[in-house]
Amino acid sequence: MVADSISAERGYGPSAATPPNKSLEGHKLLFLTHLAPPEGYFERLHAKFPGLKTEYRETPWPSRTPGGEGFTDHDWKDVTILLTGNAFPSSREIAPKLQYVQLQSAGANMILKHPLFTDTDVVFATANGVHGPQITEWVIATFLAFQHQIPTYLDIQRQGTWKRLNDEVEDAVGRRVGILGYGSIGRQVARVAKALGSDIHAYTLHPKNTPESRRDDAYAPPGLGDPEGVLPSKWFSGETKEEIHEFLSSGLDLLVVSVPLTDKTHHLLSAPEFEILKAKRTYISNIARGPIINTDDLIEALDKGLIRGAALDVTDPEPLPDGHPLWKAKNVIITPHISGASTAYTDRLLAILENNLTRLSEGKELTNKVSRRDGY
Amino acid sequence: MVADSISAERGYGPSAATPPNKSLEGHKLLFLTHLAPPEGYFERLHAKFPGLKTEYRETPWPSRTPGGEGFTDHDWKDVTILLTGNAFPSSREIAPKLQYVQLQSAGANMILKHPLFTDTDVVFATANGVHGPQITEWVIATFLAFQHQIPTYLDIQRQGTWKRLNDEVEDAVGRRVGILGYGSIGRQVARVAKALGSDIHAYTLHPKNTPESRRDDAYAPPGLGDPEGVLPSKWFSGETKEEIHEFLSSGLDLLVVSVPLTDKTHHLLSAPEFEILKAKRTYISNIARGPIINTDDLIEALDKGLIRGAALDVTDPEPLPDGHPLWKAKNVIITPHISGASTAYTDRLLAILENNLTRLSEGKELTNKVSRRDGY
Repeated sequence: MVADSISAERGYGPSAATPPNKSLEGHKLLFLTHLAPPEGYFERLHAKFPGLKTEYRETPWPSRTPGGEGFTDHDWKDVTILLTGNAFPSSREIAPKLQYVQLQSAGANMILKHPLFTDTDVVFATANGVHGPQITEWVIATFLAFQHQIPTYLDIQRQGTWKRLNDEVEDAVGRRVGILGYGSIGRQVARVAKALGSDIHAYTLHPKNTPESRRDDAYAPPGLGDPEGVLPSKWFSGETKEEIHEFLSSGLDLLVVSVPLTDKTHHLLSAPEFEILKAKRTYISNIARGPIINTDDLIEALDKGLIRGAALDVTDPEPLPDGHPLWKAKNVIITPHISGASTAYTDRLLAILENNLTRLSEGKELTNKVSRRDGY
Repeated sequence: MVADSISAERGYGPSAATPPNKSLEGHKLLFLTHLAPPEGYFERLHAKFPGLKTEYRETPWPSRTPGGEGFTDHDWKDVTILLTGNAFPSSREIAPKLQYVQLQSAGANMILKHPLFTDTDVVFATANGVHGPQITEWVIATFLAFQHQIPTYLDIQRQGTWKRLNDEVEDAVGRRVGILGYGSIGRQVARVAKALGSDIHAYTLHPKNTPESRRDDAYAPPGLGDPEGVLPSKWFSGETKEEIHEFLSSGLDLLVVSVPLTDKTHHLLSAPEFEILKAKRTYISNIARGPIINTDDLIEALDKGLIRGAALDVTDPEPLPDGHPLWKAKNVIITPHISGASTAYTDRLLAILENNLTRLSEGKELTNKVSRRDGY
């Protein structure tokens, strides 16, 4: 059975070579998502994989609640491949042939406690790489806008008057950008920050001491990101407080939080970390998940000016309730978890799926797999 | 006399080789500017050029009126080198030894009709290269903020409510950036736009058909800009309407106006050009000079939606008067000519000056010279 042989995981067990199945005979792909496949996409897959069956069932925009929506009212028995935001079969029993789930998000936190992840060998792949360009643009736009006082100038413009602010702008040349989580988003941020003249410090969970280990095989649009891992001037790693603090102490002007939410990263940035960051009044950009930052501590750090500001596309709680004090914290920019939206999103996600279908048909290991060891 | 031998110009006459004057004996450098030399700068110059005399006289922030302020109440008779914004000797007669004026702006329009420029061989050098990083950041920040709807999200944030806009964002991957005036600012914009995944079209007044002609020897911080001229996928040139229109018709998502203001570029973008740009609803970013764009035609193009928006750090008239209709044109971002301000400005300007002093002491041709043929 093919399912067994693609269950090997990044960092675990044997690398999975399976017998080729060029036509994907016996496979059924289910789209259970709000993303409609573009016209001609399924036809193209059928032409490439004549044995592949396909089905599209529209669901609402996925909720972010862990565990997913537990779809039972669907005939799962022939489904081998699922593309979804957060709608999974409620048990292995009703979906016995499922072997590859393509998530439409870069984060996989919603599956970490799902029995399909914890108790089966179903391969989960993230949309790693789909978000690199647009989330990078959000990070760069909010940081540069803050540094160049654009929000204040927009207010002055509204008053219809020509008035210069006194403060001069610190441009990005020679500044240092720390990237907490050097994955596909962090790598594209690094590419742009480098083009702006900044120095890059990268943090990863596991040490990256060799050129080989610094490579990243996740999808990136051609020419973008840092697939070879050559942009950082310095690499940091490790999960102890001391190791994280070493990274945070390395003179960062901008800290980009692009690490997955796991038990290890929950409240990774709290009061002691803000105490460290106050040396450079580091600007924080969080495009990962809200709970990586302790919200109360963040509000205090902002209001006391320990950090110069923060751009948050994610919050904790999320959605951020009306009247929550974070809305009015000093120097904060908040957007409602939209940085990953792009008109190119679906095309890139489907490029990952198609790439993995091709690898499956060739008997190769899939890419973008969620590690059961690391939870991302 | 040294003055004669450094009068050769870019594109004119012989390249200027002068006898070396290692100590700059006989030279006097006058700072006539609001920019204070940083502590130790003059001392460092004296150590390097023991013959050089220096003087600092503070003036107000320069006005942008053509012709400069005509300083007569100063003893000019020994001054050979002047660093200034817009304060010049009122006649050649009172400053007989002046041979090199280092302007502190990238634009040179204020000198084009000044008798020192039209009637003498004094070399004027711009601050070309000083502005590349920070003005690029302003261009990128305003464009990406607009594309990602950050101004609207800032308004929603002010209401303290979590609300997503419906429109998806078009990210920069595969978009095309047209750079009208491929000088040091345009080259740094190109570097960043390329890192964002965009394609670059460059326009220059004179054809750049050879690798040699595509090079730019103006100052750029190490590793930045495009000194070799290798980033554009296509080059355009020429001063006829037809040639300009060919460039504007080349499928531009973003048009960066970084051409100097001269008689040839006055009102370069008027109603017929907006008619061309409507095909892609090109976003316009003007960081050069206001009068390059016909303001009335721009307001109409914005309000009719011929273009998707504009970011203007310069306007015509400037300062833009209270109540002027441009303040409230659709999708416009206006800032009061501040994009060039940077805490690194003076350091970079003084690096150019020092570089030219070194070249002068070695008998080499100066860099960043304003051409009397082209007026920039």
